[in-house]
Amino acid sequence: MSRIILGIDPGFAILGWGIIESKDGSRNIENVQWGAILTKSGEPIEERILKVYQELKTIIDLYKPNEIVMEKVFFNNNAKTIIGVAQIQGIVFLLSAIMNLPIFQYTPLQAKSALTGYGVANKQQVQNMLKLVLKLEDFPRPDDAADAVALAFCHLQTKKYL
Amino acid sequence: MSRIILGIDPGFAILGWGIIESKDGSRNIENVQWGAILTKSGEPIEERILKVYQELKTIIDLYKPNEIVMEKVFFNNNAKTIIGVAQIQGIVFLLSAIMNLPIFQYTPLQAKSALTGYGVANKQQVQNMLKLVLKLEDFPRPDDAADAVALAFCHLQTKKYL
Repeated sequence: MSRIILGIDPGFAILGWGIIESKDGSRNIENVQWGAILTKSGEPIEERILKVYQELKTIIDLYKPNEIVMEKVFFNNNAKTIIGVAQIQGIVFLLSAIMNLPIFQYTPLQAKSALTGYGVANKQQVQNMLKLVLKLEDFPRPDDAADAVALAFCHLQTKKYL
Repeated sequence: MSRIILGIDPGFAILGWGIIESKDGSRNIENVQWGAILTKSGEPIEERILKVYQELKTIIDLYKPNEIVMEKVFFNNNAKTIIGVAQIQGIVFLLSAIMNLPIFQYTPLQAKSALTGYGVANKQQVQNMLKLVLKLEDFPRPDDAADAVALAFCHLQTKKYL
């Protein structure tokens, strides 16, 4: 059975997304895709949220993931951006419910640990490990997309889908 | 021209809503309605968010407001609940964009000041002033619904619709 995971690094100005497809038993990861949804800071909040919702829905329609994985946020991190990040999380949860896709949350620490074996890896180490483990020709960019791919990989590993 | 305002006090376990209708020039406020959307803490986040989205959409379809008013949240208040409140705000913004309704945000201080003339009014004073100013037979309950009606009233006053 093929399993397609959509990882999401939620954010208001930039939302990173990454797709990983795995085949049960084969330990093969295929069809890795990534990208970012950008919105402009000058636009009204509701229009930026609608844009993220519509583009994310297009990505789900296109890649047809079986499960969604999203970065978990805490009150203590990102004081300046946390309200906007949580607003975007709200619409990701809504999409998962509307499209009947199970959704899971992991912390950045869990994602980095799954990939590099320890949670304090820097951005470059995460990029390098993604390229190595997923046998990519390019580094996933921007960082938000790399984080999203790492989240999807973390989920495959945690659920022992690999 | 009649103008219908939907006030929303966003929350995860309980979302308060209030409808006020005003007639331009007449200084009359009519058709005040209120209520609350409740979700259960044991249910998955995505199902709770979907329930709030669907019930809020039903309220909008029923009362056909011209504008939405929502309480603004800040990083400093409600440390424990702020992420959930902001997630709900996200779907309120999304609904306003999908249904093409302008949305405005006010702080609780602004709402209380509009109603009572000062921002430090307690819950009971807000209830009393709502009953008096809006000529209600009952106090809006629960508090979340009263706050939502107060937000809608604040908007009417701020925009000089009354």
